[in-house]
Amino acid sequence: MPHDYPDALKNAINALNKLPGIGKRSAERIALSLLEEKSEVAKELIQAIQCALEKVRHCTTCGNYTEADPCAICLDHSRDPGIICVVETPHDILSIEKAGSFHGVYHALMGRLSPLDGVNPEDLRIKELMERITHFPVREVILALGTELESETTAIYTGKLLKEKNIPVTRIAYGISAGMGLEYADSLTLSRALEGRRAI
Amino acid sequence: MPHDYPDALKNAINALNKLPGIGKRSAERIALSLLEEKSEVAKELIQAIQCALEKVRHCTTCGNYTEADPCAICLDHSRDPGIICVVETPHDILSIEKAGSFHGVYHALMGRLSPLDGVNPEDLRIKELMERITHFPVREVILALGTELESETTAIYTGKLLKEKNIPVTRIAYGISAGMGLEYADSLTLSRALEGRRAI
Repeated sequence: MPHDYPDALKNAINALNKLPGIGKRSAERIALSLLEEKSEVAKELIQAIQCALEKVRHCTTCGNYTEADPCAICLDHSRDPGIICVVETPHDILSIEKAGSFHGVYHALMGRLSPLDGVNPEDLRIKELMERITHFPVREVILALGTELESETTAIYTGKLLKEKNIPVTRIAYGISAGMGLEYADSLTLSRALEGRRAI
Repeated sequence: MPHDYPDALKNAINALNKLPGIGKRSAERIALSLLEEKSEVAKELIQAIQCALEKVRHCTTCGNYTEADPCAICLDHSRDPGIICVVETPHDILSIEKAGSFHGVYHALMGRLSPLDGVNPEDLRIKELMERITHFPVREVILALGTELESETTAIYTGKLLKEKNIPVTRIAYGISAGMGLEYADSLTLSRALEGRRAI
């Protein structure tokens, strides 16, 4: 029988292999590189992950990643707390921040409705959103959710609850991406782009 | 100014970004996934890497990765210690083991000669190889090195030393890869395949 890596090395490869986007060969390459460089990179990596696990939490108001609670966005007086942008994950908050054109505040639902996978309204931060709008006069809630079925369901469900409280609700526009030609757009995107047409 | 991830999370992303083959976006995705899953995967990963750093060392005889010294291959009585296959890295040992057709023992040089990068003969395990062949009657040394310039230099240098001690030295064949058509082979590979032709 041909010989194999020692167990401790195989375990490290398997653990790396569980990370998203890391295949068997990448995991092997990373594990070997961590051993080669006699542990400066490895130690730094372990410390950085441990530190992130200890320090990073979710803002209790908006759900954003933060070390201090509330987060910097919720504390930022230059932002308009009267406009709440509802997103699925804290990661989405950063994507919108990178775009740099939104100056309101956020509310991450921490997922999307998917009854088949056991994700029901009480599993998302929908109740917290409803509490926020009763404690603070909100002029608009923007639903910035994805386009998949579960996101649609979440948008419809959340939108209905908000309208019952007489909160103006909008959804972000879905259409052709910037720099994308019509020939590359799928038909659902095209029909959404047509639906969302505007007078010029 | 748009808000960004908290520092501890940015540090984790940067540390992951230093791993081979992990770009900025993959690093971000992995860091976020480690936080999401509230740390079972992350803890397992940290433990596995720490354990590998502690336990995995190089076999003092052949340089192979091992937890016990000497390694399983050097201790395996079914293997022929009279044939030493010289490779650049311990990783190469596993590649040859996977092929399953070699039943001798190994010697990893831990690199290749590259005077421009400051890698000289004394930085490789060449002295250890010469000691091995004086302490044990070796019938053949197979040089299984790569085809790049530094590997060539290493092969020529090591081969010369071995021949001075009257050890039969061979090099593995370089030619067309299995399953590869001639139209995909580069010209260096083709000329090597021609040079290495055999009577049938």
